[in-house]
Amino acid sequence: MTSRNMKSGLKTSKVGAWLSGKGPQADIVISSRIRLARNVAGVSFLPKASPQEQKELVSSINRTLTETLISNGRGVIHVEDLPLLEAQFLLERHLVSADFLKGKGPRGFFATQDETFSLMINEEDHLRLQVFASGLSLKEAFERTSEIEERLNSALPFAYSERYGFLTACPTNVGTGMRASILIHLPGVILTREIDRVLRGVLQLGLSVRGTYGEGTETKGHLFQISNQRTLGQSEEEIVETLTGMAEQLIRYERDARSYLMANMAPYIQDKTFRSLGILKYARALTSEETLNLLSALRLGLPMPGLDVATLNKLMILSRPANLQLYFGEELSPEQRDSKRAELVRETLKDVEA
Amino acid sequence: MTSRNMKSGLKTSKVGAWLSGKGPQADIVISSRIRLARNVAGVSFLPKASPQEQKELVSSINRTLTETLISNGRGVIHVEDLPLLEAQFLLERHLVSADFLKGKGPRGFFATQDETFSLMINEEDHLRLQVFASGLSLKEAFERTSEIEERLNSALPFAYSERYGFLTACPTNVGTGMRASILIHLPGVILTREIDRVLRGVLQLGLSVRGTYGEGTETKGHLFQISNQRTLGQSEEEIVETLTGMAEQLIRYERDARSYLMANMAPYIQDKTFRSLGILKYARALTSEETLNLLSALRLGLPMPGLDVATLNKLMILSRPANLQLYFGEELSPEQRDSKRAELVRETLKDVEA
Repeated sequence: MTSRNMKSGLKTSKVGAWLSGKGPQADIVISSRIRLARNVAGVSFLPKASPQEQKELVSSINRTLTETLISNGRGVIHVEDLPLLEAQFLLERHLVSADFLKGKGPRGFFATQDETFSLMINEEDHLRLQVFASGLSLKEAFERTSEIEERLNSALPFAYSERYGFLTACPTNVGTGMRASILIHLPGVILTREIDRVLRGVLQLGLSVRGTYGEGTETKGHLFQISNQRTLGQSEEEIVETLTGMAEQLIRYERDARSYLMANMAPYIQDKTFRSLGILKYARALTSEETLNLLSALRLGLPMPGLDVATLNKLMILSRPANLQLYFGEELSPEQRDSKRAELVRETLKDVEA
Repeated sequence: MTSRNMKSGLKTSKVGAWLSGKGPQADIVISSRIRLARNVAGVSFLPKASPQEQKELVSSINRTLTETLISNGRGVIHVEDLPLLEAQFLLERHLVSADFLKGKGPRGFFATQDETFSLMINEEDHLRLQVFASGLSLKEAFERTSEIEERLNSALPFAYSERYGFLTACPTNVGTGMRASILIHLPGVILTREIDRVLRGVLQLGLSVRGTYGEGTETKGHLFQISNQRTLGQSEEEIVETLTGMAEQLIRYERDARSYLMANMAPYIQDKTFRSLGILKYARALTSEETLNLLSALRLGLPMPGLDVATLNKLMILSRPANLQLYFGEELSPEQRDSKRAELVRETLKDVEA
C-alpha cells in the first residue's frame, strides 16, 4: 500500500518530524507533547450531542481548519470510514487515542503532513488538539498550541467559564483542559535500580507516569510517559514549568546513572549494546516488544558510528504492527510480521558497525 | 605464552587434527575415540605400585615410545611438573582425564603433535592409550590403536590372562580394556523432543551417554558422548560394530529431525541460527557455556557461507578457560576471560555473513 492509498495522506515510510531527534536533550527525552481539550460554545457536549450535531461539528471544524489556514489544503478525514489498519497506524503514531477509535458516530481526524500537529473531533470533547515537538520542548510546543488554539477560537469560540476556565466533557479536564507530557528514556535509572525512588518523586509532584501508549499500558523499552494530572488551579505556564523542571531533573538522574554505569559496569553495558546490535542485525524474526527492548539498549549505547537518535525513533514507530503492515503494503499474520519486522530492522541498521 | 613455553609442546592456537571436520559424517559426529587400558606385566598394578616403580614405569615407557618410533623424537612429560593451566589445557582438549590430573606420584603424558594419539602413564592403569579420529571413524581409530598397541606390547608385554583377557586395575575394564566413544551433536533430536526416546534406545544397547567432558558432566551445546560399557564378553570388533551401528542410527534420527524442522519450523531455525551468529559476532563478553550453546546453533545452521565444521570445532576447544588463557598467553580473571573469549570468537567469525 503506497501513501496514495492512505486516507490520512500520511507517509507510511516516514515518521513525524517530532521524532527527528533534533530537539534539546533528544537523546533522553524523545518528545514533548501538549494536548488541549476544547469544546465549541453553543453545541451540546459529548456524549449528549446528537449524531447530526456531531456530523455538523466535523464539517464546521473542517471548514475552520481551511479558513484559518491550519489545514493547508488537507481536509479532515472521517474516522468511521478508516480501514482498521490505518486507524491502528494512527494510534501507534500517537496521533489518536484508543478511546477515539473505539467511539461511535461521526468523528474527524486531522494531522499536518509532518505529524507535529493533529486534532481529534468528537473524542471525549469536541476537540482535542495536539502538538508534538522533538526533545524537551514543552514551552515551544505550548506556544505553538496556543497559537493554533487562538486561530481556531477566533473562528469557532470555545466553551469557557470565567470561574472554571475551559469547560470539558469530563470534570478532570476542566480549567486549562491541557495535558502536557514527555516521553523519556530512563534505562540508566532502571539499571542502577533507582527507578522506584525516582518515580516516587515524580508522583509526589502531582505528575503521572504511564507506559508509552498511555493509560494502563505497560512501560516497555525503558520508556516512560510523564504528564501533569491537574488541569485546575494551575496555569498552562505553571504546568509547562513544573513538567520541564521535572524532566530536567530526570535527565540529570539519567545522566548520573549512565556515568555511574560507565565508570563501574562499562564492559556489561558495552556487551549489552553490541549484543543488541548483533541480534537486530541478524535476527530473522523479531517481536514488537523485543525490538523495543533491543532498540532501547542501542539508544543507551549511543553515540555509535552510523547510528543516530532519528533512526532509533523511526524504527520504534515503523516496527509497530500496523505501521509495519502499511510500510510493506500488505496485511501480515503475526509470524509474517515478526519476519518482516526483522527485515526492516536489518535493512535499516545494515551500515551500523560495532 | 607461545607454544615454545608449553611443556607438552602442543600448539595453543591449533587444535587436534581429529577436529578437522573431514571425517565421515563429521557435521554430526564430531569425533571417534578408542581408549585402551593396559598394564605392564610383572609390575605392580596401581595403586599398589610404589612411587619408585611408577617412576621407572614412566621412564621405561618413555624409552619404549622412542624405540618403537611412536614418539618420533618427542618425550613423555612429567605431569606432576605441569603448570596447573597447562594441565587444564590438556583436560579441555580431551587428552587427559580429570582423575589423572588429581592423581599423585610420578605420572607421564605423551601426545603426538596432531593430538590424534595420546597416552597417560599411571592414571588408573599403567597405560591408557587413546586414539582420536574425525567423524564417525571408530574402525579406523581402532585399527590405529591396535597397531600402536602391538608395537608397545612387543617391547613391553602387557598383563594378559587367557581366561579374562587384558588385566586392569579396576574389574570394569578387564577383558578388552577398551572404551570406544563418539562425540555426537543432536540438536535436531532435542528440538523435536525425541531425545529421551532416542537415548533410551542407546542405553538399552548397553551403551552409556555422558556430557562432553566424561562421567558426571552435563551435556552442553547439544553434544553427547556415547560409549560402550562392557569390556568383557565382547570382542573389540563387536564393540566397534555395535557403537558404529548405533551412531549410524543416531545420525539418521538427527537428519530426519532436521528435515522435519526445516519442513515445519524453518523460520524458527533460521532465526535461531542467525541470532546466534549475531551475538557471537557482536558480543563483548561470552561465557564458556553460552559460547558452546551458540556454536551449537551455528552448527545446526550449516552450511553457511564462510563457515565450516573445523572452525566451530576449533572455537569449541579454544574457548574453554585454560585454552583461552594459553591462547592469549596470560592468566585471566573470569571477567577477562569472557571478554577475551568474545574477542577470539569475533575475530574468528568476522568473515561469516548471513
